[in-house]
Amino acid sequence: MPEFGIVIHGGAGTITREKMTPELEKAYHAGLLESLVAGYNILNSGGSSLDAVYRAVYVMEENPLFNAGKGAVFTNSGIHEQDAAIMDGKTLKVGAVAGVRHIKNPINLARLVMEKTPHVLLARDGAEEFARLQGMEMMPDEYFDTEARRRQLLEVQAKERDLQTTPQASGLFGAEGKSGTVGAVALDKAGNLAAATSTGGMSNSRYGRIGDSPIIGAGTYANNRTCAISATGHGEYFIRAVSAYDLSAMMEYRGLSLQQAAEVAIHTKLAALGGTGGLIGIDPSGSITLQLNTPGMYRGYYLPDGKPFTAIYRDE
Amino acid sequence: MPEFGIVIHGGAGTITREKMTPELEKAYHAGLLESLVAGYNILNSGGSSLDAVYRAVYVMEENPLFNAGKGAVFTNSGIHEQDAAIMDGKTLKVGAVAGVRHIKNPINLARLVMEKTPHVLLARDGAEEFARLQGMEMMPDEYFDTEARRRQLLEVQAKERDLQTTPQASGLFGAEGKSGTVGAVALDKAGNLAAATSTGGMSNSRYGRIGDSPIIGAGTYANNRTCAISATGHGEYFIRAVSAYDLSAMMEYRGLSLQQAAEVAIHTKLAALGGTGGLIGIDPSGSITLQLNTPGMYRGYYLPDGKPFTAIYRDE
Repeated sequence: MPEFGIVIHGGAGTITREKMTPELEKAYHAGLLESLVAGYNILNSGGSSLDAVYRAVYVMEENPLFNAGKGAVFTNSGIHEQDAAIMDGKTLKVGAVAGVRHIKNPINLARLVMEKTPHVLLARDGAEEFARLQGMEMMPDEYFDTEARRRQLLEVQAKERDLQTTPQASGLFGAEGKSGTVGAVALDKAGNLAAATSTGGMSNSRYGRIGDSPIIGAGTYANNRTCAISATGHGEYFIRAVSAYDLSAMMEYRGLSLQQAAEVAIHTKLAALGGTGGLIGIDPSGSITLQLNTPGMYRGYYLPDGKPFTAIYRDE
Repeated sequence: MPEFGIVIHGGAGTITREKMTPELEKAYHAGLLESLVAGYNILNSGGSSLDAVYRAVYVMEENPLFNAGKGAVFTNSGIHEQDAAIMDGKTLKVGAVAGVRHIKNPINLARLVMEKTPHVLLARDGAEEFARLQGMEMMPDEYFDTEARRRQLLEVQAKERDLQTTPQASGLFGAEGKSGTVGAVALDKAGNLAAATSTGGMSNSRYGRIGDSPIIGAGTYANNRTCAISATGHGEYFIRAVSAYDLSAMMEYRGLSLQQAAEVAIHTKLAALGGTGGLIGIDPSGSITLQLNTPGMYRGYYLPDGKPFTAIYRDE
């Protein structure tokens, strides 16, 4: 078994070859690879899993292709609101932020919540006030804008206008676009696990909606006794299923392997609720899992016994 | 075994006989009793556990003695920000709100999130916008003010000024007052479980801090297969331990009884992290549990085989 390793995802959804161009495919593989190498190098030189997942997520936040940091989706109001969480499997310490604006790297703010506060979750304007007091780099909302995400918002809003001509539509909640998330899990040479997740949320979202990414046990979890998990997909279902912690509990209490527990979590339990998405995981022995019930999930792993692997479609 | 029943709490903490007066004691017992009877009557007449926990929590939100609704604590800015969650054990449907202002009954808004939206968690100003569009009753911030909570804020802020004369103090986070929460869990005659929790959060809190009450799996959880749980105490620890879902998982995967699992959750796992608080639970057979590792927890239960029971101190 490998003595350390990192697994990442860049979001799951209806990602198909038909919608893709060769150039975009190449760019996604390059983006995943950059993140993997950044995290792997930290682990390889004896760094902590916490630093590795932090760095891997940070690199994807900087990449406008992924729905986190630069490149985050637009809310219904045309702004960007982001969620992030990080968890240390050794201490079970946690930091998370929900619905924050103007934060260049939300995973950085989540880590500050973990390290500098007695709290685990700060939200919206309150979290931003904390960020300013910490002297964090703040960006104007336009920094996060990308043409692709604006086009996506317009498409979703057009679909919404169609929906609202039907009598079923409440008028309050119209069409919502696909979400997308980035995440990383890692095992370091000292045997410590960590997980990190960051997201721009759901395109066209309203009313301060919070998904599963910053919810410990739903979209993010790490515990040296069992596994480190980061999820992506339709967050509401991961919250209702407490997916990440349920997976850990199936390992701890039923003796399932990481792979078995991950399969049950995604293909049995999430599916039973009607949820879609995927997750990545790593356990203390360095075993990894990548599960999805969607057509695609940007993903990859890098273990000391091989070359970095990246993939996009389910059948890869 | 009883065929239905309800268990409630009104917050756990350093509640001691020395700090109490006979009048206040009597008022707390009466407040708990009013909540219990309201929930029990719904169950007894064949109503749903969801309606019963909703109503029991609503009654405590209306009572200025409890830290939820009228009587909620003050934040550091001198305002009131509230969290609430409700979960249906039959469908695993969930509604929750975090950091909302001006909402007379946060549990009402949480229920609307469950019933009227595709989401499970809405936060702060976004959640309030949703509430206004739903035509909810909005109150000026002063409605929630009580003399006792203002005195508590001043005490905590005085302690904070003392702390900040020491070099250890960061200046960003000073003393924070005790939290307090109200919650209810119930089993109805149809065999369905439900849980609800509502809180004014932590006295003197800052930066949009969110505790465990609105976090599914941490402070609130219900599943017809296992149990319904509502927790109270130092929320950060319940989030890190995923306490409510962990209890459910120990029942489902390890075959522990509700009572055994609740004891492990509070006296082993929460204690190992250094957390303080308590929780209440009920299972599909009507067995109940009330656990605390603090000197007191306002609590009670009402089962068809007896009279309503209410208690305050641990040794009762």
